[in-house]
This record gives sequence, C-alpha cells and structure tokens, in this order.
Amino acid sequence: MGRCEALTIHSQEPDKLTRGYGTAALRATQEEVATWMEAAGLTVRRDAVGNLIGRYEGKRATAKTLLLGSHLDSVGDAGKYDGPLGVLVALAVVEGLHARQERLPFAIELLAFADEEGMRFGTAYLSSSVFTGAFDSAWLTAVDTEGVSLADAILGFGGDPDGVVTSPPDAASLAGYVEVHIEQGPTLESLDLPVGIVSAIAGRNRVAISFTGAAGHAGTVAMPLRHDALCAAAEFVLAAEATALATPGLVATVGEIAIEPGAGNVIPGLARLALDIRHPDDTVREGACRRLRHQMEEMAAQRGVEATWQIVNDNAAVACDPHLSGLLADAIEQTGHAVHHLPSGAGHDPVMLAVVTSVAMLFVRCAGGISHNPAESVMIDDVAVAIEVVDRFVGMLADVGPATR
Amino acid sequence: MGRCEALTIHSQEPDKLTRGYGTAALRATQEEVATWMEAAGLTVRRDAVGNLIGRYEGKRATAKTLLLGSHLDSVGDAGKYDGPLGVLVALAVVEGLHARQERLPFAIELLAFADEEGMRFGTAYLSSSVFTGAFDSAWLTAVDTEGVSLADAILGFGGDPDGVVTSPPDAASLAGYVEVHIEQGPTLESLDLPVGIVSAIAGRNRVAISFTGAAGHAGTVAMPLRHDALCAAAEFVLAAEATALATPGLVATVGEIAIEPGAGNVIPGLARLALDIRHPDDTVREGACRRLRHQMEEMAAQRGVEATWQIVNDNAAVACDPHLSGLLADAIEQTGHAVHHLPSGAGHDPVMLAVVTSVAMLFVRCAGGISHNPAESVMIDDVAVAIEVVDRFVGMLADVGPATR
Repeated sequence: MGRCEALTIHSQEPDKLTRGYGTAALRATQEEVATWMEAAGLTVRRDAVGNLIGRYEGKRATAKTLLLGSHLDSVGDAGKYDGPLGVLVALAVVEGLHARQERLPFAIELLAFADEEGMRFGTAYLSSSVFTGAFDSAWLTAVDTEGVSLADAILGFGGDPDGVVTSPPDAASLAGYVEVHIEQGPTLESLDLPVGIVSAIAGRNRVAISFTGAAGHAGTVAMPLRHDALCAAAEFVLAAEATALATPGLVATVGEIAIEPGAGNVIPGLARLALDIRHPDDTVREGACRRLRHQMEEMAAQRGVEATWQIVNDNAAVACDPHLSGLLADAIEQTGHAVHHLPSGAGHDPVMLAVVTSVAMLFVRCAGGISHNPAESVMIDDVAVAIEVVDRFVGMLADVGPATR
Repeated sequence: MGRCEALTIHSQEPDKLTRGYGTAALRATQEEVATWMEAAGLTVRRDAVGNLIGRYEGKRATAKTLLLGSHLDSVGDAGKYDGPLGVLVALAVVEGLHARQERLPFAIELLAFADEEGMRFGTAYLSSSVFTGAFDSAWLTAVDTEGVSLADAILGFGGDPDGVVTSPPDAASLAGYVEVHIEQGPTLESLDLPVGIVSAIAGRNRVAISFTGAAGHAGTVAMPLRHDALCAAAEFVLAAEATALATPGLVATVGEIAIEPGAGNVIPGLARLALDIRHPDDTVREGACRRLRHQMEEMAAQRGVEATWQIVNDNAAVACDPHLSGLLADAIEQTGHAVHHLPSGAGHDPVMLAVVTSVAMLFVRCAGGISHNPAESVMIDDVAVAIEVVDRFVGMLADVGPATR
C-alpha cells in the first residue's frame, strides 16, 4: 500500500491521479516499478507496446510460465488501487519467493500492462492484446483528442509500432494468468469478506436507443394528442431497471440521455439513450436484450413514436478457470476466511488473456464499492490476505501442477 | 395572407424568418405595416420602446379607445402567422371602416407590439409592459447574447430608454383589448372550426427539479444497491404525464433533462429536470403542483435519493372578459359557425393588457397545431371568417357599448 501511495506522484495532471497510455507519468511509474522488480530478482523487459514485464525463472529453463499481473495506467482523476494493487500484490509474492530463494517448477512473469482503461485511444485491453497476439494493425491510425496517432504514441513511449502485431504465445507454454484487483463493487464489503473469487467476467452489450416523437408547444398541445419522446424514454429507463431487478445477476444502466429540442416550453421530439447491460451468462443477457427490445417496440407503438435499437458493443462473458479458481478457494480457506464466488461486472485484462490461457481473478474488498475516483480505498489487512492467498496459490500450483488447456 | 407572406422578406437570418426586438428586420417590417396603416386612414406613431401604434379616430375626440392588435417580432426560424396575422386582421377591419367612411362611438388603436416573444432578452411581453405602465427599469440592464443592453437596443431601435417607465393608461379611457392569434394547438382543427374564443390564458409554473443519488460503476453495483438519479427522474416524468392526463385541461411537460456524470458505463448520480405545468384555473394548477411535489418526495425517499423542487415562475391565469367574449360569440354565430370556447395554453400579450383593461382573444385554426416553425399554416377562408367576426364584433360593440370595468 505504501508503494501504491508512492506511485501517485506520477500523474499527467496536477492535483489528480491520471496516467494515460504513453505519457511521461506512466513511464516514470514503470521505471519505479521496474526498480522494485529488479530488487525482487525479476529480469525486466518491455514489449513492443511498452508493457513492463518482469520474469522470475523457474527450476528449469524449459518450464511453463505462470502469468500474474494487472495494469499501471489509469482513468482520469483516478484512485490509487485500480490496476497498481494487482501488480504490486504479485510483486510482493515474488519478493517472498526471492527472499526464501525458492524456485518453482514454472517461471513467473509479472505483467504490468500499459493500457487497460483505454482512456487515451478508447480501446480497452489495448496493451494486453499485444501480449496475446490479438492487436489489430488498423488501431495504429487511431488518434487521441490532440490528434496524436497510436503509432506515434507507441514510438514516443519507447515502443515499436511495427512489432505490436505478433503471433499469440504458445498456449502450451503458459500455466495460466491470475490477476488481483479491487472489487469496484460493494458485495465483499456487504459480506464482510476481505477477498473473493471471480466466477466470470460479465458479458456486455452497449445499445444506442432512440425515440422519435413530435415536438410541440408545451402549452398548446393537449396531453392525449402528444407523442412525447421523453415520456417514451422514461418508460424504457424504468423497464430496463425492472428487468434487471427481476433477473439475478443482471445489471442494466441508462447512463446517457439527450433530448431535442431541449427547451422548457417545448415537448421533446427526440430522445437518445445509451443502455449498458451485463450478465456473467451470455444467454441470460441475450434474453434480457430481446425482451427489452420487444418492450421498447411495444411502448413506442402505444405512444405513436418511432424507436430504434442499435447494438454498439456485444462482448461475450469470460468464465474463470475452475482449476485455478479452486486453488484460490483452497488458499482462502487456509487463511481462515470464507470462500465467496462473485461475477465481475467490470471488464479486466483476463478477457483478453483468456484467448491464450486459463484465467482466474481474486477481488479485494474496497470501501463502499467506489472506484475510478480519488476516494478509492482498501484496507491493509485485506491486502495482506490477498498477498497470502496468492502466495499459497502459487505454492499449491507448484504441488498439483497447472491447469491443462 | 398576402401581407403575412410579404413581410417574410424582413428577417435577420437568411433563408429563415427570424425577427428579434430592435433589429433592422423588425424596423423594416414596421415601416411596411405603417405604410399600410396610413393607407387605411390610421395616424401612426411609435412609443418609447418602439411599439408601432395606428390610431383611427372615433366620432368624438373624447371617446374611449378600443385596442386591437398583436405582435410583429418572432422567435427564431419562425412561421409567418404567429403575431403578424393578428395585426393584419385588425388592419383589414379598420380598412373596411375607412373604406365605408364609418366612424364608431370609440376610437380604435391598432397595437403592433415590438417584443412579445422575448427571444432577444428573455423577457416575455416586454413591449406591452411599456404600454400598460408595467415596465421595470431594472430590465434596462439586461443584455442579449452579444452583450448589448436592452437600453442600448431601445436606443438603436429609435426608442427612448428614459421613456419606457410610464404611468398606466387611464382604464376608463379604454374599451378593451382584443387580439386575434393562431391557435398553436390542434383543437379547432379537430373540431373542424375556423375560429374559437379564448376562455382564459392558462396560468403557468416553471419548476426546476433535481434528483441526487449516487454515481457508480454500471458493471459492479448490483441493482438493489443503486440510487440511480435517472430512474427517479424517469418515474417523475411519467407521474407528471399521468397527473396531466387525469386532470382535464392540465398540461405538464418535462422539456429539459440533464444527467451527471453522463457516461454510458456510469450510473447517473444527478438528474435535473425542467417542468412546465399549465391550467386555465389556478386552483387546479396549484393542486396538481402540490400532488406532484408530494409524489416526487415519496419517490425520492423510496429510492434513497435527494429531491429538490424550486419554482422558477408562477404566473396566474388570466380570464377573458365575458362581455367582449360574448360579443365575439354573437359575431361567430352570425357567420354561421359553431361557437367554441377554449383555453389558451400559450401566453399572449393580453396577459399584460389585462392589468389595465378587459381582454378577449379570437383563435384561428392552424394546420396540425404547429407554430414556432416555418410549417405554420392557416387557411384563407378561416382568415376571412376571423376578419368578418372582428368586423361584426366592432359593430356590435358600437351598438351595445364597451365592457365596464
């Protein structure tokens, strides 16, 4: 936690913590973490996109590699723990191995990703996609708000835009990927548990919805003659909420709304909404989307307004590996805490890593479920539990062997 | 209707009809109307704010004055008829008197107001307030979007900012104010009637409402733990609609909504709404406001969000004069059309004129109820009915005498 605190001095904005991809602030953060990695016996390198990777060799050079890590970039005006905590818990575990001069039957690579949040170029998992061979060369021409292309940003970050499109790593060489992360939700706090095991990372749709009615004078058009686009939108907002409340594990959020013409004395003629809907089970999510779309069409027809439904994103759920998760559960039991499995509503780099290897995640309780906010907070005892759980996990994995895939 | 068409060449914007207070476009419009007034035997003057006034003397110089008129300014991208039609119907009536060399027992003043819409300075009835002695000198320091003060705009329009604060005219010298205006609503069209009599101009509240909940991650905060400000706002939007639907004559409109932070993956923490609520009976409107405020507080409490209710405007209803309206009704009957009384949901200059004299209004059917829009449309036969009704009204008023007040 002292290290999370120490890293807050590296920010691209004064008085707030903001670390976008390719910035001097992120580079300075990497340099500080690299120093800690080297002191813990890790061999440090950076890949073509500038991910910081520390390798702790196993007993044999031909051994498989267990991947641990998280990301060092942040959103704007961020908290201290979303990302760095996962890197530094893994580092603490390797430090323990190094201090005990312990070598495992597999190597460990500590991955400190350079762009998970996608704040600068709007593409989530940008840096882990380079690691897994999923980077799309078309992304190189994306530009940030100042017109800098991703290719130039990679160059400026000491990377190699010609080297980001790679073959996926050999799955047989990998023993899995395990990430520690703050929960970003209130479940562990409500259960009074320090850590929990992620069952799956929820699949997600983003849907752009519009209702087109008829604008009119707020004083002169009688109520039964109206085709108010905002009233239609309001019905939909409540239908989405009701569907989610009635469907265990489903979350549905209308986070954006805009109306036209948007004057106090004019009946809204157009309303646009952004719907975000997530569930760890894709069939549940897809069924909810179908029902909501049908409800939207019925509401619109009843009001004589036009409705449109456009799917902007459709990301499948990613299940965590039962073998790795089972070992995490055994490790938690050994620390004397209850084992709780919970889905992750937020996306994380394991979504990308799952393409090439088995993944698992350990959540750490965070105060009030608050994240992406300077008020992000964790307790030192919970972080100690997380380090102990990962340490025990690594030991058990050494005993029983990695997941097969 | 030809004159309404002819006046469209005077606009401050190319390719649309826009005539704000104090503009060269409005001045050119006044000059053209003044020419027509003079040809109809009217003596033309402009008052301190630049209202164009044409006087047609009665049989005796000491006679009362009947006021007829409407406004020549417009909203942005306006239609041809909102305002000018009322001025030009009254002008046609006086032209008839002049052609027949007919003098009445009262004078007629034709008022062509210079700022009813309040587009430039945000103050409705600005110019009729000068006529009635209700102008507030504090308004002189108001500025338009380019930083020009109202005082300078009055000067630039050939008016006199020192002369706009006046005593009200002597009520005993006035025989009433009658305005012809397009309906701006669909009622006459739905009844297949050319004209209708306004029973009252609705009273109106504008209310600023806010709901403050808790922002949060759209993927990580379970539904039962949310305090979504937009869901609370959506419930309120539908409650306002339901209240208005269940209350004859009430209209309620949420014409503005804004949420924060307003990102697709963030639960809304704050929602602000603008409510516009109108009814011709103030006690009905006030009762509806009380009920809606109570509902707002109940909804907010159930969701654990904070709600605020701030009344921005509270304008009482203005009843039209039964004597003048009765004469209008007799005149309509004489034209062979059914008499229909309807409230005006929109505000008009009679709200201001009612301070000093009895008022009445005649609505003319407009296509689809559309106004404040280039598609504004009236039928020539309906305009002919309106001219005939006002002509007969003036004749009957000459016979039976003015309203007493």
